[in-house]
Amino acid sequence: MPSAASAFLTVPARGGRAVRLDAGEAIEIVNTHGSQVVDTWALSTADPSEYLSMEQTRRMLFKLWPQQGDALYSNRRSKMLAMELDTSPGIHDTLFACCDRWVYANYGCPPGHANCHDNFHVALEALGIAPPLVPNPLNLWMNIPVSDNRRLAIEPPVSRPGDRVVLRALMDCAVVMSACPMDVTPINGAGCRPMDVQYRVLARAA
Amino acid sequence: MPSAASAFLTVPARGGRAVRLDAGEAIEIVNTHGSQVVDTWALSTADPSEYLSMEQTRRMLFKLWPQQGDALYSNRRSKMLAMELDTSPGIHDTLFACCDRWVYANYGCPPGHANCHDNFHVALEALGIAPPLVPNPLNLWMNIPVSDNRRLAIEPPVSRPGDRVVLRALMDCAVVMSACPMDVTPINGAGCRPMDVQYRVLARAA
Repeated sequence: MPSAASAFLTVPARGGRAVRLDAGEAIEIVNTHGSQVVDTWALSTADPSEYLSMEQTRRMLFKLWPQQGDALYSNRRSKMLAMELDTSPGIHDTLFACCDRWVYANYGCPPGHANCHDNFHVALEALGIAPPLVPNPLNLWMNIPVSDNRRLAIEPPVSRPGDRVVLRALMDCAVVMSACPMDVTPINGAGCRPMDVQYRVLARAA
Repeated sequence: MPSAASAFLTVPARGGRAVRLDAGEAIEIVNTHGSQVVDTWALSTADPSEYLSMEQTRRMLFKLWPQQGDALYSNRRSKMLAMELDTSPGIHDTLFACCDRWVYANYGCPPGHANCHDNFHVALEALGIAPPLVPNPLNLWMNIPVSDNRRLAIEPPVSRPGDRVVLRALMDCAVVMSACPMDVTPINGAGCRPMDVQYRVLARAA
């Protein structure tokens, strides 16, 4: 029997949302239109200076990005999340920073472009959490192919409409999602059109 | 004619040092014994919340780690350092976090093990700089081979005694070095013996 779930909620295109999870609960993130990258973070609610760390996750998994069945680690080498389900082709990124005001300035965009860095802060502010820094995110569905074991590129996502990832909380934490506002590079598909995504909270398995 | 240089100074095994550089000056870091990894950071002295960013450097270079001739970027996409010279085989790492108290706790070491995270803070404190976070370092000579464009491993350095890297400051900054105290894995050579390294400051080219 499937575990209880909340109704689906929306992360609007270019926006962010944060959700508190008790240990054992999970978040299901749905790539509704298939082409949207979701910058994803997690922080311990007991101590927001403990956060999901791509540097430690790479080290503990000996992989550039996690796959279904993998644990994801905090900056204190604690297991924070488990990637319990991934219906997509399993291409995600941990190598590139989230977009921010400086990235868009570098591209020549006028000030005020929506960005994942600000979305992170705004989404957590709604939960009353003020983290000391913006960690490097898990960039769900972001397609940064590696070649020659060294070279990187930017390609559109290979995920499909309805693909979903389930992240199970292994400690009490807040999960933050930003539907990446990038519209300069094809990070969010060849059309460079940021889209909304859906999410819901899944109860602890019975 | 070679530019003027300070006398060589030592980063003791397991210890850290920080140096202020004016734009145009450079630091030469010598892997005296050949097997030592040096966790290396840089921060703007005008605003220590601007720091050398491995996430932005990978993005701007489209490489997993920099090579001789490459610029290294800050978290605001500004060029902060240039890797002007690298006499080693050019194997460095940007993927793994620096070691810290939690890493050694994870290995079962008793509390108090020297670590790069604390070395970073202590070295900058000596310069009167209190940064808001410990960024992910450029791990000079750290050998994290990538295979299948995805899988990671830990191998001893392939650098040789006397190999050196010159990092030229492209803005006023503080450079921090930690002679990594790791003695559990072969990060610092198969013998797992942290060693000292030498460095000196090179004047602005005439």
